[in-house]
Amino acid sequence: MPAILGQNQYGKAETRVVRITRDGAVHHIKDLNVSVALSGDMEEVHYSGSNANVLPTDTTKNTVFAFAKEHGIESAERFGIHLARHFVTSQEPIRRARIRIEEYAWERIGTSGATEGTGTGHSFVRRGQETRLAQTTYDGERWEVISGLKDLTVLNSTDSEFWGYVKDKYTTLPETHDRVLATDVAARWRFGWTDDEQETPDWEESYEQTRRHLLQAFAETYSLSLQQTLHRMGARVIDHRGEIDEIRLSLPNKHHFLVDLEPFGLKNDNEVYFAADRPYGLIEATVLRDGCEARIPVH
Amino acid sequence: MPAILGQNQYGKAETRVVRITRDGAVHHIKDLNVSVALSGDMEEVHYSGSNANVLPTDTTKNTVFAFAKEHGIESAERFGIHLARHFVTSQEPIRRARIRIEEYAWERIGTSGATEGTGTGHSFVRRGQETRLAQTTYDGERWEVISGLKDLTVLNSTDSEFWGYVKDKYTTLPETHDRVLATDVAARWRFGWTDDEQETPDWEESYEQTRRHLLQAFAETYSLSLQQTLHRMGARVIDHRGEIDEIRLSLPNKHHFLVDLEPFGLKNDNEVYFAADRPYGLIEATVLRDGCEARIPVH
Amino acid sequence: MPAILGQNQYGKAETRVVRITRDGAVHHIKDLNVSVALSGDMEEVHYSGSNANVLPTDTTKNTVFAFAKEHGIESAERFGIHLARHFVTSQEPIRRARIRIEEYAWERIGTSGATEGTGTGHSFVRRGQETRLAQTTYDGERWEVISGLKDLTVLNSTDSEFWGYVKDKYTTLPETHDRVLATDVAARWRFGWTDDEQETPDWEESYEQTRRHLLQAFAETYSLSLQQTLHRMGARVIDHRGEIDEIRLSLPNKHHFLVDLEPFGLKNDNEVYFAADRPYGLIEATVLRDGCEARIPVH
Amino acid sequence: MPAILGQNQYGKAETRVVRITRDGAVHHIKDLNVSVALSGDMEEVHYSGSNANVLPTDTTKNTVFAFAKEHGIESAERFGIHLARHFVTSQEPIRRARIRIEEYAWERIGTSGATEGTGTGHSFVRRGQETRLAQTTYDGERWEVISGLKDLTVLNSTDSEFWGYVKDKYTTLPETHDRVLATDVAARWRFGWTDDEQETPDWEESYEQTRRHLLQAFAETYSLSLQQTLHRMGARVIDHRGEIDEIRLSLPNKHHFLVDLEPFGLKNDNEVYFAADRPYGLIEATVLRDGCEARIPVH
Repeated sequence: MPAILGQNQYGKAETRVVRITRDGAVHHIKDLNVSVALSGDMEEVHYSGSNANVLPTDTTKNTVFAFAKEHGIESAERFGIHLARHFVTSQEPIRRARIRIEEYAWERIGTSGATEGTGTGHSFVRRGQETRLAQTTYDGERWEVISGLKDLTVLNSTDSEFWGYVKDKYTTLPETHDRVLATDVAARWRFGWTDDEQETPDWEESYEQTRRHLLQAFAETYSLSLQQTLHRMGARVIDHRGEIDEIRLSLPNKHHFLVDLEPFGLKNDNEVYFAADRPYGLIEATVLRDGCEARIPVH
Repeated sequence: MPAILGQNQYGKAETRVVRITRDGAVHHIKDLNVSVALSGDMEEVHYSGSNANVLPTDTTKNTVFAFAKEHGIESAERFGIHLARHFVTSQEPIRRARIRIEEYAWERIGTSGATEGTGTGHSFVRRGQETRLAQTTYDGERWEVISGLKDLTVLNSTDSEFWGYVKDKYTTLPETHDRVLATDVAARWRFGWTDDEQETPDWEESYEQTRRHLLQAFAETYSLSLQQTLHRMGARVIDHRGEIDEIRLSLPNKHHFLVDLEPFGLKNDNEVYFAADRPYGLIEATVLRDGCEARIPVH
Repeated sequence: MPAILGQNQYGKAETRVVRITRDGAVHHIKDLNVSVALSGDMEEVHYSGSNANVLPTDTTKNTVFAFAKEHGIESAERFGIHLARHFVTSQEPIRRARIRIEEYAWERIGTSGATEGTGTGHSFVRRGQETRLAQTTYDGERWEVISGLKDLTVLNSTDSEFWGYVKDKYTTLPETHDRVLATDVAARWRFGWTDDEQETPDWEESYEQTRRHLLQAFAETYSLSLQQTLHRMGARVIDHRGEIDEIRLSLPNKHHFLVDLEPFGLKNDNEVYFAADRPYGLIEATVLRDGCEARIPVH
Repeated sequence: MPAILGQNQYGKAETRVVRITRDGAVHHIKDLNVSVALSGDMEEVHYSGSNANVLPTDTTKNTVFAFAKEHGIESAERFGIHLARHFVTSQEPIRRARIRIEEYAWERIGTSGATEGTGTGHSFVRRGQETRLAQTTYDGERWEVISGLKDLTVLNSTDSEFWGYVKDKYTTLPETHDRVLATDVAARWRFGWTDDEQETPDWEESYEQTRRHLLQAFAETYSLSLQQTLHRMGARVIDHRGEIDEIRLSLPNKHHFLVDLEPFGLKNDNEVYFAADRPYGLIEATVLRDGCEARIPVH
């Protein structure tokens, strides 16, 4: 047979599980979108259609719901670890499990009869800012945990320049010493933790601090290029978060073009911008702890 | 000619204008998506293609940018008023202008060297919660201002029941005395202000308070039906905000189904839910100040 | 009570029903997205939360599935008529039902061992072009059927001009005598049929012919403005389809800007265009049979 | 410095270029979305912000437009080859260029005065089915061309079974011997062509034939699992298209659940289905020509 099977994986994608935990009248909520991908001894199902080694994707969905009850959802990463371990250790043909999770944050609704910021205990409004990401992979021996976020939109209204670049025959862009710099931050970071013998990071605290460092590095960098800003964001995380060995950032340059108001007899002193959709610059890079191997895939 | 022209309108849709205002080192940002629709003496352009009465949509786009400089953007409503008045009063064939605006909120990025919550003055992160809406219509005599919001996602994890409903031969739904109630709030509210002689509302304050009332009414209502919750939300706005005569709410019932864990030997005590996408219930209604006329269109 | 209830409606939105009909080995498929909206004697559910008059939205979903079996799906319009009649006639408190349907077209996959264009009889590929629309409303006495389509993207690469328009102080657009004209056609048309005593139109044939007329009118019109093209499209339908009394078109002007290649020493003889996303012109109008009333809502 | 730079790339994403070619009154259209990613000697721009090695993303956009004029767009692959070669050979610091292209197909609008299927020569309707993909990568020595498609939605209404799978404590799915099988085909295939000395494939013909084989293999496979169908689709391409060494397929199992109509006293003999959105099974695999290396990335 000339056509042979290469890498393959299967599972149920996008199981939307919401877990409510009741601490008396005060409820807590975890809102996840869980995707399972399993690999292993799967030649037969591809060649002959025999499902003898196949745990149905429907079962992987059921397992997500059951584990939300059995183990709770302390963090997306820990929940992924429970699931990945289960699939690999309970089914002999499954050699590798990858659990991808998106998490949506909620905050409490403050109510009218209460002190500012407190509420009913059971009423929430979706935060709506970035989506948190957590990917856990297990092959029966070692763990790989890659967390991240996407769609965190940020903007600096000054302290950004762009000049001194290469000019070829197709270059028409004028240099600028004061522009708006805006991007939707997409980041994935890999933890040094790989082994059950090691102590696990505090996943929730790690996420909050990493997110804070990304925002602050963006805000505090006087930028000569989006690449420079990207590197500072990544380096800040590597420098401050010892549990993280590698981070990859993908930053679209959401162009805000200064509108030419001269035809209308008006001066535009960095006041009025057109926010363009497409095309957009796209800047991507990995920043690594020295001595660590790059493992986050390039897309 | 048997085929005659009915209602018609035209203009540039979705002009994305961002206005930065610099108060020394502290910048302010307004981020709008502006759509212009003009009507009037437009038979000829439809029948013969003569553009003699047509102000190009490109010009309406330019006007949006120019007005962001000339008038600033104090609020979306006020900006819409400037634009609508301009088109109707400056072009004889244009008898009616409707300006629809979406607004995206930003908050400041707190920086590391500063007190909690303060930042560089020029660094922002998009808030990402609801989109604010403002629609201003002018016919040369009277104003109609309809503000609103969409995509404000809220959830009560208890204090919601659903029972006592009609059962016909197609009814299989079991009654429940404790369910999750979640929705994406979409609301439009119409102001009583219609005349330049009247004092205009404080558009920014009105928005913040109306949004707060919607959230609190959702949180504080013990719900026997989503219709009841909707009415309480609308009535709360009418009761507390004298400047608003009418509000229309469109509330999808974002079903969170309690997962049956019994096949796995587990009890689900209102802990684990499946968040479904489609189909969804859709509850829509207008709530009016007594004596006022309903004018917000039904979709 | 100062806050009174205005227009209201409720039901299950976006029930995705697929109906397979087997004619021996040759199968047929109808793929619909059905949204039900019911109105009537619904004050109590809003004021007190009593559901005594409320047929659950879950039941309206069940009814969609059951009717797909009981009545089949000959056309989206006929299916909507069955549903609307059922809700209004079977439940006393329900006075009005509106059924909105989106339909997705499929074509057969031709197979290798067969004559061109024939296939297995049970294999389909989604056509992927426009989405068909059908809205049926019944109040117990009269019917209103509004059909339509959306997302039918068309382009003329010549035979379009734009000049002779109003110039004001914000006008910078140069006139053109040869441009690309492209749009996503969104159209809704209302049938004259309102009464069970009248013969119903052939809904499938009517749709195919109306779609064809829209495409051909777009293609065959030498355009001096998108308004003119819109009117010709609407008038062509009114002129050729006696069963249709009114049509409303919403045509975004999907700008294709001629790229300035002069900086690179190249001449752009209407060859290379930038297809822009936003902003876009938006041209909307109703075309009516003389003597008929306009009833399709303006958005 | 503990934080070092890993893989990085940059360029302008999503330049929407439309090329019209006029063959007398008969026009031809190519409609592309082009994304450029460049890599090379880019340490400085990340570390210090010096742009001395940076060709601006704006210039890469200009180059796309200029090349559409200079070279025309015979096929997306050939256009990508022109661009990739240009960036690598004209800029010393650029060592690698990857051009990703999406292509949208158009068909002619037949007009009323003409023979069936012919039209004005300049009027088009977007085909709207799958999006074609073409990715071209060049490092100055070797080429890698990966073509593909996405969003080709197919359905078999019978000849699909699923049984004989693993049952664990979380398995509730009943076996089935007749189900609907539906998926959105996403496929990427890599060509054996890597060297300017080799003859290039006929990119247009190769695409049409590969697409046809994918559709026919889907239609003609009696399926015991979606993995089996996937493998047959991939193997068919490898067997019939000698220019292709590797193909990777990603097939969501778009579940069509048979609706239980028994509560309504109705029998559902594989007639009425609920088309679900999420969760969905996701089946992914690479199929390789024996002896070839797998190079298409796994996501």
